[in-house]
Order: sequence, then C-alpha cells, then structure tokens
Amino acid sequence: MSLTVVGSIAFDAVRTPFGERERMLGGAAVHFALAASFFDEVRVVGPVGDDFGEDEYAVLRDRGVVTDDIEQVAGGKTFFWSGVYSENLNARETLETELNVFEAFEPKLSDASRDCDVLFLANIVPDLQIGVREQCDKARFVALDSMDLWMNIARDSLDRAIRMVDCVILNDEELEQLTGRPNVLTAAREVLSWGPAAVVAKLGKYGAALVTADGFFALPAFPMETVVDPTGAGDSFAGGFVGYVAAHPGEEIAHGLLTRAMAYGTAIASYNVQEFGTERVARLTPDEIAGRVADLERMTRFEDMPVALRG
Amino acid sequence: MSLTVVGSIAFDAVRTPFGERERMLGGAAVHFALAASFFDEVRVVGPVGDDFGEDEYAVLRDRGVVTDDIEQVAGGKTFFWSGVYSENLNARETLETELNVFEAFEPKLSDASRDCDVLFLANIVPDLQIGVREQCDKARFVALDSMDLWMNIARDSLDRAIRMVDCVILNDEELEQLTGRPNVLTAAREVLSWGPAAVVAKLGKYGAALVTADGFFALPAFPMETVVDPTGAGDSFAGGFVGYVAAHPGEEIAHGLLTRAMAYGTAIASYNVQEFGTERVARLTPDEIAGRVADLERMTRFEDMPVALRG
Repeated sequence: MSLTVVGSIAFDAVRTPFGERERMLGGAAVHFALAASFFDEVRVVGPVGDDFGEDEYAVLRDRGVVTDDIEQVAGGKTFFWSGVYSENLNARETLETELNVFEAFEPKLSDASRDCDVLFLANIVPDLQIGVREQCDKARFVALDSMDLWMNIARDSLDRAIRMVDCVILNDEELEQLTGRPNVLTAAREVLSWGPAAVVAKLGKYGAALVTADGFFALPAFPMETVVDPTGAGDSFAGGFVGYVAAHPGEEIAHGLLTRAMAYGTAIASYNVQEFGTERVARLTPDEIAGRVADLERMTRFEDMPVALRG
Repeated sequence: MSLTVVGSIAFDAVRTPFGERERMLGGAAVHFALAASFFDEVRVVGPVGDDFGEDEYAVLRDRGVVTDDIEQVAGGKTFFWSGVYSENLNARETLETELNVFEAFEPKLSDASRDCDVLFLANIVPDLQIGVREQCDKARFVALDSMDLWMNIARDSLDRAIRMVDCVILNDEELEQLTGRPNVLTAAREVLSWGPAAVVAKLGKYGAALVTADGFFALPAFPMETVVDPTGAGDSFAGGFVGYVAAHPGEEIAHGLLTRAMAYGTAIASYNVQEFGTERVARLTPDEIAGRVADLERMTRFEDMPVALRG
C-alpha cells in the first residue's frame, strides 16, 4: 500500500512573536508527507529548483518519504513564500509569493506514485488535480484541499475536481464561500450532495469538524500554552488524517474511522505549531503522537448522567 | 436548594437575516433563568419598569421561575437594547442601549434569594456583583460573567469580584483581554491562579472550553442548519451549565461534573438560537434537552484504536 501527495514544496520565510526564519523547508506536500509518514509509505510529487539540496531531501528521507517523484528543474528556483503573523497568531500577512518552478508545474507521476492506494491533492491548480486524480485510478480514497483563489478564477475546474474525490478538506470560510451557505453544516452538506462522501472543515485554533452522510463530528484543537509558528498546521492535519486512512487498507472508510483519523491529524498538527516549519514533526515519535491522541480523547469525552429535569 | 441569578431584564429589538422583533423579552437574567429552570428553583433579582407587564412575568412563571425579587420601579422604563446581526450572524452591531431602570440598580435580595445554594452573577457592575456575592454567603457555587467595559473602567472591582467566585464564564477574547495572555489555555490558567476553581471560555459558534486544575475540556456548539437569533445564547448556556451544578447538591463540584454541565448548557443554547429571544426555550421540554445532550455525546466521541505507527 502507498500514499501519494501532489503539491507544493517550498522555502518559507516567517516572522512570529517567537522569532523568525529566513529560509525554512515548507510547502503543503512537505508538511503533509512528514505527517503521513507515520502511517504509510509516502511518495511526494512536486517541483523544486537547483536551490533544493541534500539537507532538504534528507528531512523527507529520514522519515522514509520517497522523493523519487520530486522533479528538480534545472536552472529553476524553488517556490518561496514569506509572511508575518500577528501578535496572537490569529492573522497572517503574506509579504511575498514567488511561484518560481511551481508556476509551470506539470505533475509527472511514476508508476509507483500512480499505483497509490490513497491520494492527497494538496492545494494546486484544479486542472492539475483533475489530471492526477485521473491517473491514480486505483486509489480507494482521494482527498483534496483548495483555496479561495481557485474558487475565484477556476471555479468550473474546481467543481469538477471536487466531484472526483472522496473527501474535501477546507477551512470553514472556504467551505462557506464555495457553497454560498452561511455555516459549516449546511456548506458541508451541499458539498456532500456533489459527490464526496466526507467533508472536513478546518477551524484553525478551534479544531476541525467532519460531516458525512452518517453524521457530524467535531474535535477541538489540542490546547497549547505556546504556538510558535502555525505555518503548515493545516497540511500536517491533513497528513495525519489521510495517513490514518491509508494505514487501514482493509477497512471500509466509515464515519468512525474518519473520526479517529481526525484525532491523529489534530495531534500531529499540534506538534507542528510548537516549533518553526518542519522542525518539530521531523523528530516526532510514535509515542508522542499516541500520547496526544489519548489526551484528546480525555479532553473531549463527557459521560452523560441522566438528571431529573423540571418540565 | 435554590439558585439565584442577578442581572439584566430587558426588552430587545433585533434584526437578523431571518426576520426582526421590535420588542421581545430578553436580558441576561431572563435567558439564564429560563435555561436554569429545568434544573432547580430559580430566583431572579433585577429591575424592570412600568412597561414590564403580566405577559413578561408569565414567561418566567410558566417555567416555575420565582419573580418575587424582580423590582418594579414605579415611573421607570425597562432596560432596552437594539441591534442588528450580519448576514452570517458572526457579527452584531448595537444600535441603541437605554439603561433606564438598570442605571440606578441596587440589588435587593429577599432572605430566600440570599439563602441560595448556587448563585450566578450575570454581567453587571462588578461592585454590585461583590455586594451580592457577600450577601449570599452560604452559596456553595458562585459563577460570574462580565464584559470588556468593566475591564476598561472598573478593573480593580472586577478583579476583586473574580477572586470571590468559584467559576468565571467569559468569551475567549474577553479572557485574553482580562489576562493579557494570547490564548484561552494560558488566559484561563492565569484566572485560576487568582482563586476560581473553574474557567469557562465561550467560543461562540465554536462551542466552549472548560479549564480547571484537573484539566482541559472542550465541546463544540451543537451544529445548526439555521440560526435565527443568537441573542441570549451565552446566557442560556450559562443557565444550563450553572443549573446542572445546582441540580447536584450533594456532589463535589469536580471536573467531570462540570464537563456534563457544559453539555446541558450547550444543548439549551442551541435551542435558544433557533427562534427569536426566549420563544424557543420558553416551550422547551426535558426530552428535547436530553436528546440533544445525547446527540452531543455521539458527535464528540471517538474511540481511539491503536495503530502501528512508523517510527
């Protein structure tokens, strides 16, 4: 079994109240792959430039991620993003986005990547997502991320892409924009009516919610004393979530499985934000993940005890 | 056993995307009392004017709320608030606030109100909260709500009031403002260090979180297809939460009890927002509350199943 992710590989420059980094490994596919690497063999499909070196490959390979389908574009530069976070980390401002090699990216999948059991289409041009999804025709579970930009400039393609996947993972505002519905529940149900069996709404510091035909599930973010750098948290969440599904090849992808997957995504995302970029997840251990999932189970469980209510 | 609440009794005028009301019964003490009335005998302490009539008293009395300590000020007018909600109900703008009889309010507690087992100090001037808290010296559980206004103009009194109660119930932004801490967890722990045994952070449409010395607990809001009018949701939540504690007189007020109390608060608040003002809660039934608590238990529970993680 294996898991393929297609998306951005980047260098990020960020400033947060806790410090800054001028050039750290990032990108949706990288954060996703590191998180998912705890569950399955992960193949990354995405472009880099000449500036992407052994140190960066090593971060992925040290976690067992297969980098054969990372396309190194001769003479090119790796995608670069820089941003600054607000004092309470609730908002961020993009300072610079240099697409570089990402601008002309055409995903090229090896046979091994195409044969994946599970596929994650990170946030890229919807037409590329469609092309990859069509190539990976054996995948039993395909999830997709996107952003407001594609809703604005490539709406038809995005709609087509969404109809081809099993699960859509978006922020709550993005879901509301996508559907024109005023809340997560009605927005998610609208998306379900288009084809996907599951919708995950990422709620930032408030956690995430899952909507399927079988119901609604919500999980808070793991409570943190200190968030050092939120960059990549959503992709780490997706990596843990989709990775957990990949780790259960024989199992029907039912509501209950996805609720557990949410807990693993939430746990790994919470480690991601404790340090800059990939620093914390790169040295994360299985025991640390399991510990935080167990904590989450305790922090969300209440046992109702019937009480005599006055009518 | 009995529960006393001190706070505002109001007429509200609201406009939401689903309609408007020019004059509906409202106020923190009213919403709180109706919600808490499912758990215990509730006494309301608060002022009204000549315009507060039998119809309004009837809403409270029909739910068994004791109105003897509602002070009808001759020649006065009842507190009036009007506001308009945004399209997605995430924001509201206050159009008018007429304090009227609330401006010179001095709580006058009967012996029965003073003898309460549980006390809720709704959002009023902190010095009045202190005075009432001192009178109710037998109360085994006292909770307090407040707002940014008092943090700005009566900070010392508010600090004193907080040190005299068992539980503080505030919005997450209010907690962060109160403590100067950047997130709910550190803000709540700061408040715990001042004396209270529990802090509840209301998170609006994202639910609520509880922090005690024994841990962290979070519960999402009940997912709604349609929110008609959010006015009073926070006070309904507090009424269900504090009411549940009042309904367990023999029990130690431990973390587990408060997590269950959160579920009842959340359930009742979710009914509150389905119609304008007090309309829905006024005809709510015990079975409806119990049903939604059971739904919440299902919607938040996941059973972790160990998975072999790749180290």
